[in-house]
Amino acid sequence: MPSLSTPGFSFEVHASDGAARVGTLTTPHGDVPTPTFMPVGTQGSVKTLTPAEVAATGARIVLGNTYHLWLRPGPEVVAHAGGLHGFTRWPHAMLTDSGGFQAFSLAERRTFGPDGFVFRSHLDGERRALSPEVAMQVQGALAADIAMQLDVCPPGEAPRSEVEAACRTTTAWAKRCLAAKSPSQAVFGIVQGGTHPDLRRAHADELGALPFDGLALGGFSVGEPIERMHEVIGEVAGALDPARPRYLMGVGTPRDLVIAIGAGVDMFDCVLPTRNARNGQAILQRGRVVIKQARYRDDLAPLDPTCSCPTCAAGYSRAYLRHLYLAGEILVLRLFTAHNLHLYGRLVAEAREAIRAGRFASFARAWADAGRAADADADSAVTAAAMRDEGGVDTKK
Amino acid sequence: MPSLSTPGFSFEVHASDGAARVGTLTTPHGDVPTPTFMPVGTQGSVKTLTPAEVAATGARIVLGNTYHLWLRPGPEVVAHAGGLHGFTRWPHAMLTDSGGFQAFSLAERRTFGPDGFVFRSHLDGERRALSPEVAMQVQGALAADIAMQLDVCPPGEAPRSEVEAACRTTTAWAKRCLAAKSPSQAVFGIVQGGTHPDLRRAHADELGALPFDGLALGGFSVGEPIERMHEVIGEVAGALDPARPRYLMGVGTPRDLVIAIGAGVDMFDCVLPTRNARNGQAILQRGRVVIKQARYRDDLAPLDPTCSCPTCAAGYSRAYLRHLYLAGEILVLRLFTAHNLHLYGRLVAEAREAIRAGRFASFARAWADAGRAADADADSAVTAAAMRDEGGVDTKK
Repeated sequence: MPSLSTPGFSFEVHASDGAARVGTLTTPHGDVPTPTFMPVGTQGSVKTLTPAEVAATGARIVLGNTYHLWLRPGPEVVAHAGGLHGFTRWPHAMLTDSGGFQAFSLAERRTFGPDGFVFRSHLDGERRALSPEVAMQVQGALAADIAMQLDVCPPGEAPRSEVEAACRTTTAWAKRCLAAKSPSQAVFGIVQGGTHPDLRRAHADELGALPFDGLALGGFSVGEPIERMHEVIGEVAGALDPARPRYLMGVGTPRDLVIAIGAGVDMFDCVLPTRNARNGQAILQRGRVVIKQARYRDDLAPLDPTCSCPTCAAGYSRAYLRHLYLAGEILVLRLFTAHNLHLYGRLVAEAREAIRAGRFASFARAWADAGRAADADADSAVTAAAMRDEGGVDTKK
Repeated sequence: MPSLSTPGFSFEVHASDGAARVGTLTTPHGDVPTPTFMPVGTQGSVKTLTPAEVAATGARIVLGNTYHLWLRPGPEVVAHAGGLHGFTRWPHAMLTDSGGFQAFSLAERRTFGPDGFVFRSHLDGERRALSPEVAMQVQGALAADIAMQLDVCPPGEAPRSEVEAACRTTTAWAKRCLAAKSPSQAVFGIVQGGTHPDLRRAHADELGALPFDGLALGGFSVGEPIERMHEVIGEVAGALDPARPRYLMGVGTPRDLVIAIGAGVDMFDCVLPTRNARNGQAILQRGRVVIKQARYRDDLAPLDPTCSCPTCAAGYSRAYLRHLYLAGEILVLRLFTAHNLHLYGRLVAEAREAIRAGRFASFARAWADAGRAADADADSAVTAAAMRDEGGVDTKK
């Protein structure tokens, strides 16, 4: 397996079907079969589930949010506990984002300059400065297997000149992040360029020339029309160096995943399956269940009779799940989260099988309806930023 | 094993040590070793846990609240799903209370007469009438193994004349409940009498003369001083027919359990371990952990190094649990609930061993400090009613 720039990391493509490919990303915390979906553990917890339950969905890598963990509990607390692995007890691979997206979308009184972001914490108003070097330092303390470079992510409606400037700054920060990175931590570059395929390709070439361990597509699902996002991903994913893992950030619905896997993407993260679960929405391969609906009052069927997730296998009826949801019982949030993440785990597992067997096209057709719930939500540009935040419940009341 | 009045139910005492005794309560859903603690599943869920996780704490019987389930989802929904067992997927024994306590403490515009309670639902203001017959009818539809008679529970500061009247009405309702009960469901009578041992003994004799399958002590932990409660339980528990299971309702702390087991009580329920868990309080055999405290910020020890519950065994540090709590992460509510219920399960299991071995006194000394957290809360009369209610989180926001 060819080594990447960082010791202990490698990536190998085993098979492909069209542009879609099956591979293995090797990390110090084990192998990750790709295509893979990374459940989001914003604050050091994939909400409502234990690490063992997350792994049971098939996930072998999860994502933590640097912005949130930087502000609370702080990188020194996490480092003292042995990094995110020791702190959270997740034994498999882990990736952290750079914190830039949340510093941009969540923080107060944010300013932006050539050295990064200066902002006030949304928790306590404290002033913080996030430079490329600080992003790598904080991520080094969190000590996930993979860190992300600090980047500039313009909104979906930004003019071309702003997107060009974002690419230039992102490239400059890419070099500073690589210079500041921990020697034992892999770092991925983030390709920007909005919905301009020519800018995307040029930026992919620029970042591809740097010794990143992987390359990501950032700046999608930030307000642009979903169909346009699909088109651009189809046009530019192949421009990312095929020898390195390709990661589409913050996307998306099951349909988004199927389309992007078909374009050659290897890694995904999104809060959609976990957030929708907590809103009482179960994603099925065909359609969805919005559990509060009165039609489920006496429905003794499980969420999905064809599903083998713990929620469906245990025989909980839709009638009981609806009662739990309307009664505000926390159990239902767990049961839906496990179900939705199992669906995503099954989707990428079936994609890997289909690619190996040379039948990716029929796989894609079989999943065409999946997550219509999710699509309906994601169609709204307004929800895109919210989808990257994951607040907590008030446990202190 | 001698049969009780209802087919499929029996109770046998295997050993005793002083007044403390070890027994088996046989139900259509399996044997329950006594002394036993019943976790509270107010709305058809022991909050945050799955049935398998509840059973893993050692519990073989749980309690459901008739008032809550009557109002939502309604007994017809539960009956359609096969009763509480089919609805909730809890495979072991189950008991429901009568609904009277919550109709008294939670409902709005409540009136009380010789036929029961008339009140407005706290959920939607709908007028409801709870008579002895309705209490048995609703509990029959919920179809737990054991139903409780409708009783009158005067507050701790009630004058003796009011307590005497409550005993008289409770006896009248006892007969009506037995006449109205489902033939396949066991029913327990509820002995009142406040802190007056003579009234308690006389009422125990009155109800003991009726064909109840078990006898409960109601009307404790309703505002009276805790030490007085302990004295009265010590004086009157032995007055309950020793051939039938004795159930102390809504009590209490680990210390309360130890004292009452020593007086001859077999069954307990209380929301304290589950409610305190959701308030970030872990109960230890010696003391407690209030996880929000700053002293735990960098504490890498588990909640209790001597504990074998899943939370402590998985190696979650106090530092991580504190972070989860302060960040509003639901996972910590599960982890604390499992820990606290394991402690209660261990307490009754060790009590059974100690009684069989004739060393109950040394067991009681070993648990003397347990749940100082809990005691501190329970000392307040104000919390007693709240401890019997268990609201939900707002899953619909």
